[in-house]
Amino acid sequence: MAMVCLSDFEAYAKKYLPKIAWDYFAAGADDCTTRDENILAYKRIRFWPRMLRDVSVMDIRTKILGSEISFPVGIAPTGFHQLAWPDGEKSTARAARAMNTCYIASTYSTCTLEEISTAAPGGLRWFQLYIHCNRAASQQLVQRAEALGFQGLVLTVDLPYTGKRRDDIRNGFCLPPHMKVKNLEGAFEVCKMSPLDPSVTWNDVYWLRSLTHLPIIIKGILTREDAELAVRHGVQGIIVSNHGGRQLDEGPATIDALVEVVEAVQGRVEVYVDGGIRKGSDVLKALALGAKCVFIGRPALWGLAYKGEEGLQDVLRILQDEFRLSMALAGCASVSEIGKHLVQFSKL
Amino acid sequence: MAMVCLSDFEAYAKKYLPKIAWDYFAAGADDCTTRDENILAYKRIRFWPRMLRDVSVMDIRTKILGSEISFPVGIAPTGFHQLAWPDGEKSTARAARAMNTCYIASTYSTCTLEEISTAAPGGLRWFQLYIHCNRAASQQLVQRAEALGFQGLVLTVDLPYTGKRRDDIRNGFCLPPHMKVKNLEGAFEVCKMSPLDPSVTWNDVYWLRSLTHLPIIIKGILTREDAELAVRHGVQGIIVSNHGGRQLDEGPATIDALVEVVEAVQGRVEVYVDGGIRKGSDVLKALALGAKCVFIGRPALWGLAYKGEEGLQDVLRILQDEFRLSMALAGCASVSEIGKHLVQFSKL
Amino acid sequence: MAMVCLSDFEAYAKKYLPKIAWDYFAAGADDCTTRDENILAYKRIRFWPRMLRDVSVMDIRTKILGSEISFPVGIAPTGFHQLAWPDGEKSTARAARAMNTCYIASTYSTCTLEEISTAAPGGLRWFQLYIHCNRAASQQLVQRAEALGFQGLVLTVDLPYTGKRRDDIRNGFCLPPHMKVKNLEGAFEVCKMSPLDPSVTWNDVYWLRSLTHLPIIIKGILTREDAELAVRHGVQGIIVSNHGGRQLDEGPATIDALVEVVEAVQGRVEVYVDGGIRKGSDVLKALALGAKCVFIGRPALWGLAYKGEEGLQDVLRILQDEFRLSMALAGCASVSEIGKHLVQFSKL
Amino acid sequence: MAMVCLSDFEAYAKKYLPKIAWDYFAAGADDCTTRDENILAYKRIRFWPRMLRDVSVMDIRTKILGSEISFPVGIAPTGFHQLAWPDGEKSTARAARAMNTCYIASTYSTCTLEEISTAAPGGLRWFQLYIHCNRAASQQLVQRAEALGFQGLVLTVDLPYTGKRRDDIRNGFCLPPHMKVKNLEGAFEVCKMSPLDPSVTWNDVYWLRSLTHLPIIIKGILTREDAELAVRHGVQGIIVSNHGGRQLDEGPATIDALVEVVEAVQGRVEVYVDGGIRKGSDVLKALALGAKCVFIGRPALWGLAYKGEEGLQDVLRILQDEFRLSMALAGCASVSEIGKHLVQFSKL
Repeated sequence: MAMVCLSDFEAYAKKYLPKIAWDYFAAGADDCTTRDENILAYKRIRFWPRMLRDVSVMDIRTKILGSEISFPVGIAPTGFHQLAWPDGEKSTARAARAMNTCYIASTYSTCTLEEISTAAPGGLRWFQLYIHCNRAASQQLVQRAEALGFQGLVLTVDLPYTGKRRDDIRNGFCLPPHMKVKNLEGAFEVCKMSPLDPSVTWNDVYWLRSLTHLPIIIKGILTREDAELAVRHGVQGIIVSNHGGRQLDEGPATIDALVEVVEAVQGRVEVYVDGGIRKGSDVLKALALGAKCVFIGRPALWGLAYKGEEGLQDVLRILQDEFRLSMALAGCASVSEIGKHLVQFSKL
Repeated sequence: MAMVCLSDFEAYAKKYLPKIAWDYFAAGADDCTTRDENILAYKRIRFWPRMLRDVSVMDIRTKILGSEISFPVGIAPTGFHQLAWPDGEKSTARAARAMNTCYIASTYSTCTLEEISTAAPGGLRWFQLYIHCNRAASQQLVQRAEALGFQGLVLTVDLPYTGKRRDDIRNGFCLPPHMKVKNLEGAFEVCKMSPLDPSVTWNDVYWLRSLTHLPIIIKGILTREDAELAVRHGVQGIIVSNHGGRQLDEGPATIDALVEVVEAVQGRVEVYVDGGIRKGSDVLKALALGAKCVFIGRPALWGLAYKGEEGLQDVLRILQDEFRLSMALAGCASVSEIGKHLVQFSKL
Repeated sequence: MAMVCLSDFEAYAKKYLPKIAWDYFAAGADDCTTRDENILAYKRIRFWPRMLRDVSVMDIRTKILGSEISFPVGIAPTGFHQLAWPDGEKSTARAARAMNTCYIASTYSTCTLEEISTAAPGGLRWFQLYIHCNRAASQQLVQRAEALGFQGLVLTVDLPYTGKRRDDIRNGFCLPPHMKVKNLEGAFEVCKMSPLDPSVTWNDVYWLRSLTHLPIIIKGILTREDAELAVRHGVQGIIVSNHGGRQLDEGPATIDALVEVVEAVQGRVEVYVDGGIRKGSDVLKALALGAKCVFIGRPALWGLAYKGEEGLQDVLRILQDEFRLSMALAGCASVSEIGKHLVQFSKL
Repeated sequence: MAMVCLSDFEAYAKKYLPKIAWDYFAAGADDCTTRDENILAYKRIRFWPRMLRDVSVMDIRTKILGSEISFPVGIAPTGFHQLAWPDGEKSTARAARAMNTCYIASTYSTCTLEEISTAAPGGLRWFQLYIHCNRAASQQLVQRAEALGFQGLVLTVDLPYTGKRRDDIRNGFCLPPHMKVKNLEGAFEVCKMSPLDPSVTWNDVYWLRSLTHLPIIIKGILTREDAELAVRHGVQGIIVSNHGGRQLDEGPATIDALVEVVEAVQGRVEVYVDGGIRKGSDVLKALALGAKCVFIGRPALWGLAYKGEEGLQDVLRILQDEFRLSMALAGCASVSEIGKHLVQFSKL
């Protein structure tokens, strides 16, 4: 079977992963409306491409928080990579480094931050954080990440409680005994749902600020009001995200929310988006609407499920080629030429 | 089979109820467009959730006409509960009381008001009334209900004649011989359709007012004009309802009509809504659009069909958990924080 | 099989008619988009019903061009009724008279005007006319109809050439040898397509006017401009029609065009509509939008196919019952209470 | 099997062509959204036809760049006609001449320009050009075409790189060994993708202008901005095209883009459109929206696949008959009567 586009990897993963793992990765909250909307919303955006521009030399690099990446696609934080591939997050880290892009390692990794660092020294990595009831545990994680050279801290704010994912309930989802949420070992027992602190508020961003010199990126913002608050609380970046449709169902597609957030932020901080990216042209759309970079979640897992580090590189390379081609066909030779004029929301 | 969400109960009921009973409960008028629209209209409403609010302590209680209920979901009046479960409305009354919510008992109950009262003393109950040609019969029902401690009178106004439900006609629907519309025994013969009085007008609300000290809630209003009339005729509450899509087909979905009614009423009386509630987040949407409480019809019957009182409690508990979770994920810690800002009608 | 609604008759006809006859009746032009739109457009209209009106005495009668009919549904002109039932148009005439409504007999009848008249003396009938190249033949038809007591002349204007109906071409559609277009016998040979005159213009309305004292109703108008021209040329009525979607495909649904025409006409002449009526509530919608009466085409043929005169009466009676019920449920006790306030075009 | 409409030819071609050839002709870029949108967009346009116009004498001829054609449908440039029929472009040229219309021969023909010319002397033909890295090769092609009597030069501008067509990648699409891109023989090796020059800009239109006296038509324009640039750079015509949806996926349907381009051009040059034409009424829509003529791509190939020259004539004749009929049914007797008033974009 030729792996031509990302849905080929999806089909592979669905076929070869254990059902409980596939279901966990695929899960959306409730009716999965938002999970699916993330994808459908991209299809409602039309390009209005320009012709006869010199696109013989294409430059698809960009910078996020000052670091150059080979193209504006990073790896979103997702949990439990060993469910997809035995080497887990170590493979993810290696693939991201090989493709010269950014990998956001999840708190819920099945490898430790130290293992991830050692697996791919020098790679650009951010660390994703939940604030736990046990604040000392969170503080320790932040300081470990900073010490290990992670270059950004991604605070997830849309999970005061875990969303209701029906298939996980039916399956009684739980990590197999030989896998562990290693970063948290000792601190808590993960299969007991959500040891996270639901009392967290904007003030805790100041607390987090006091713990680290790393830039703080806030993940899970969907409204202009919260975007404004994020800027006012001094974060360096915002990831527009609905947690892949796994938290509150029937919220907006992230690409729709991006428009609101970009308008509110007015360039004061960098804005990124995740959710629903399935083709290079989706990346182009997100950038045209103001995202500095996008992050992929499930497609990265499908790549891992296919062939570990190599499979994830395949996924990234396909996205890279498709992005470059769609840029050229839209008449843009470099990322700086991408703008709002390229796209229009279809009313249908 | 795990009962995870309300559609699990629907599937169970469809599988295990006699076809004639399932068809009767499921029936909509004509093409069932409005029945289905009630559900689809909820799916067109998008949440715009807020983050980083303290949702560690959740308060989902509310009050209807001064009585506290554990969460804003009551049991709508539906007929013939013995078709779903041998104990019929007695089980319904017990489940509602156990969950500390309101049960609107139907005129077309298969248990008497007295049996219902005795089954669950102290429960919060309203009585649903049609005005019959035989006014004395209606008067007697009102006075029995008041005497038995029912705390509200729900006048259904959308059934001057019974809607055309094709499957009931094909099935020749009729109660089995061992069931009776006990409240009306002697007074009329129910399988002869509609002994209801189609000449009823707004003036009859004054007549009803003269019979009882109970608050009057009018059920079946869909337009702003009728909402205004209801307020002017001194009712205490309005249930926006299209009778589950069983009367005039191709009227508005109730959640769409709610917006009109709430705008017309301007807080002068309480407004409730029924029809199409299938998830806790639907309750959140209805409250965001101005409903004080919602009522569930068919899902309560599915609960009964599953395991009687216990099954109905399961249904209510799932809705309660889902409602609480969706509130928290939307950033609301108490019902008073729910507002219009949370939702937007999708144009798609 | 119980015959509960019109689609039951459709299913019956599809099952029992010879394929060539079914296909001919069912045919739409090209992709059948307009044929199907006629029906879908009704589904996009929402009722906003009023409650607590006295609907104990229902009056569903109306008048068209001064003649009272039992309810606002007549029989549209369609050809070749013997394809549906051996007695053909004689059965149609009898059923229409029995139900006290108007039957528009087609030029392409398989019975003569005289046979139709004799079959149901005293029935309210209009005659549908094409203008043929052979004007003498048209003149003779008009005068025969007038002499036989037909009370209106319906000039069809949307068939300068026959639309492209793919199935008829594939089937090589042609009347069976024992059927004849009796009104035209001798005058032309019907299976040779369209002996109609494509040079007809508005001036020919004056010519027609000069031939007869009958009121002239023009059938096939879809735009406000043509409606204005019709009024100016002195017609008495307009039937908004797209020939059941059999002529120009991808024109407007008739219920959508009705709105335009009614607005243009401003009450100066009566406006009717055909196409897509499948339920009593569709009739209510058409009247709410300004039609004085509707005409049914294919459903009448299904009724004939089911049981001839009796089957057509069944169809009409179902429509009558449904119309009365939907009026009552919308809060109207008589046709004069029906108005624009009852309906709204859904944007979905 | 009767060949009644263009989809009959499509079905035939799908059934009888080798899969690799069918897939190549059918291919769209990525998800094929734009390919399919080209067709769907036509279905969203509604006619508002006028009645009682004299349509007894129909004149469907038009002129493009001064040359009369029998009706406003020409043959768009598509490659590799020998994949559809052994005689390839020679058959295409003969069919176009027989039907008295314009054939735009592709650079990627499997016959030489000389063979095409010889096959149908005197036919109206334009030559489609890509600008290659090897400019001398392009210049030579232009001069050969001009010398052979081609009357227009169509510069394709939407293919700086080849779009990603998944099926072609899966199939490893490549011409069979006995077929050659004969016009380019010696100059390049075609299965190595895109020897085209991606550095081409508007200035190269001046270069092209300097090579030839032929009118230049620019193909692949979708925006008003590029239409303005085309006019300013002195072209004689614009073909609104998205390359049959084979280049940038999720761009606009061509009929939607046509509206933009026509508005920008304001009659200064002729505007044509290709993509999605499947019925005569589609041609009428395109003309109503301002196109001077349309071009068909895939349907021409289906005609070839059916019966070579004869099959393509069948396709053209069906389109011609359908176009004439839809014009008449819309109330237009000549192309000059077609206008914007005939159509409206449906909001649904």
